[in-house]
Amino acid sequence: MKQYYYFFTNGKLRRKDRSLFFLFGEQENSEPDESQFPLENSLVIKSQTDVNQNSSEDDSDKNNKMHIPIETVESIFCFSEITFTRAVLSFLGKLNVPVFIYDYYGNYCGTYYPKCEVISGERLLNQVRHHLDAKLRLEIAREVVCASIKNMDSTLTYYENREIELKSEIEQIKKMYEDAESSTGIKRLMGAEGYARHNYYDAWKKILADKNFDGRNSNPPLDPINAIISFLYSLLYNICTNECYRIGLNPAISYVHELGENRNSLALDIADIFKPIISDRVAFSLLNKGQINEAEHTRSEAGGVYLNETGIKIVARKFDEKLRSTFYHRELKRHISHRQLIQHEVYKLLAHISGEKPLKCFRAWW
Amino acid sequence: MKQYYYFFTNGKLRRKDRSLFFLFGEQENSEPDESQFPLENSLVIKSQTDVNQNSSEDDSDKNNKMHIPIETVESIFCFSEITFTRAVLSFLGKLNVPVFIYDYYGNYCGTYYPKCEVISGERLLNQVRHHLDAKLRLEIAREVVCASIKNMDSTLTYYENREIELKSEIEQIKKMYEDAESSTGIKRLMGAEGYARHNYYDAWKKILADKNFDGRNSNPPLDPINAIISFLYSLLYNICTNECYRIGLNPAISYVHELGENRNSLALDIADIFKPIISDRVAFSLLNKGQINEAEHTRSEAGGVYLNETGIKIVARKFDEKLRSTFYHRELKRHISHRQLIQHEVYKLLAHISGEKPLKCFRAWW
Repeated sequence: MKQYYYFFTNGKLRRKDRSLFFLFGEQENSEPDESQFPLENSLVIKSQTDVNQNSSEDDSDKNNKMHIPIETVESIFCFSEITFTRAVLSFLGKLNVPVFIYDYYGNYCGTYYPKCEVISGERLLNQVRHHLDAKLRLEIAREVVCASIKNMDSTLTYYENREIELKSEIEQIKKMYEDAESSTGIKRLMGAEGYARHNYYDAWKKILADKNFDGRNSNPPLDPINAIISFLYSLLYNICTNECYRIGLNPAISYVHELGENRNSLALDIADIFKPIISDRVAFSLLNKGQINEAEHTRSEAGGVYLNETGIKIVARKFDEKLRSTFYHRELKRHISHRQLIQHEVYKLLAHISGEKPLKCFRAWW
Repeated sequence: MKQYYYFFTNGKLRRKDRSLFFLFGEQENSEPDESQFPLENSLVIKSQTDVNQNSSEDDSDKNNKMHIPIETVESIFCFSEITFTRAVLSFLGKLNVPVFIYDYYGNYCGTYYPKCEVISGERLLNQVRHHLDAKLRLEIAREVVCASIKNMDSTLTYYENREIELKSEIEQIKKMYEDAESSTGIKRLMGAEGYARHNYYDAWKKILADKNFDGRNSNPPLDPINAIISFLYSLLYNICTNECYRIGLNPAISYVHELGENRNSLALDIADIFKPIISDRVAFSLLNKGQINEAEHTRSEAGGVYLNETGIKIVARKFDEKLRSTFYHRELKRHISHRQLIQHEVYKLLAHISGEKPLKCFRAWW
């Protein structure tokens, strides 16, 4: 399976014939810029191995030049001050590799999309038909929202089993699940989802009792924990966008979210299913194990609170570990990674709108 | 009005605070690459003025550094070996400036799309409704195809008035116009359009009598004239994509072309209207005035014939001049540029699908 490449180190991506290289830390210093991260300890997360800039692995050489086997690249996430040449962008375009660009604060800014990706016309029409037809749309939206609420429930139950008193929040969430299950319109469904989510974040105050968390906020996040959550959600969102794009679903045609709220609102639909069991679990794990320090790894700037360069690196690496970690899938009867879980979900959505198999979204049992 | 920026010179785009700079020809030479164009005489086409690398205009300085007033940038076309930093891409993302990347051969490879552009959900639904409903779709498609055929007619008539015998081709095209006007299905319509276009390119053999033109071919173009046409069409296509994107029309939902034939098939629909009166006129003008030399400005490579670096520059500059050139618009009763003409057409399409005003596509009278 191809890998996501996350770049945290400054440097240059260069093409030579049919190969891609990364030149570490050759960013010119003549033009200091707010976006230049310190070079020390900067890393590229690559597959299962972290290649340090001083590494002397097979695919690096003494000149701090790393060969990137292009056939292993699924897409590129750019968090550091990297320069792309036109030759590299046209090469990535031909190989269908999208590049997601994040700014200094870890905000997602834009994507380089290759030209050639084929979107089947029939597939797009099926997607749109299921949006336009209120009954068909509700079927999908209800299934997505129910799975999303059930996964909030699972995450809270996990912590309740660890002696945190979350009974009332879980009860409310279960009620909202029933409400969602029986709802006959999108608005009612969204209401149930919103109320469940409200209770869910309320429970976080108890799970993160020794932390300073006073509820969810965003755009911009106003405290360190919300900065971590926002960043994790934007990573998940781009992974979902990428998987839609790969399978040939138009990420702009959604079922729960309204169209145009966001360009890729289908990715938001799918991300909602996985927030509680992927992003949020990563956040809890980082915070409760003290792997991230709210004060040390964030900064207040431009009216919000953001992860700093080290914070971005810590969170993105942990997120990638989570995506790569595997579990035994009861229905598939085999071990799959969390990334494959997302891919499988996108595939199930495609099978549903193609009339092959009714959608049954993933509900965590742990 | 904001300008398209076309980059033909090697160099670096850099951001400093809220400003954008272009550093001429600072591409490192340590890594020679097929995509590095010679620096001499390389230019950036910018608004009405060409800023030479040795220019000492206000917005350049002695260090070969050109300031690019970001508020004037509509979008960027990259034809040369330019490096983009992450800081530049995130800056362009925030300012909603797309970047179109072309390879060494002048082939379009991919686009950097900013995150934030808002697509109205209602607008998208209107677009899709007009695609799904056969009657609504035919109405738009017929109008687009008729305008496209009429514009082929106008271009040939222009040359017939200049003593080139094109009577039979024009007659066939007029017949196909009537056929298209009365057609009751997309297939019949496409047939009329295809046959008209066939006759249209046949007429080119006479218009370009002293040239070596033996009909249209593409993907890849097999001779110098087809290389010029293909490149002009891809420029027009990206301009149309850009204008759809700006007005909030999804360029993937088309009416003449099938969905998924190409990612931005609506841009293909709109481009067809303007090929005869913009791209093709530029081609004739370049060829008949001897402003481009088929042998000197193209090269045979990779099984096709492509413009070389000088050829790309000549054609793109002429194309941009055409876009900026104005004419008196009879209905609008004022002078507008050809670029505004395209924008107006995209706007008319929006007004049509919004139910504001029935579509009447542009038919040239010259």
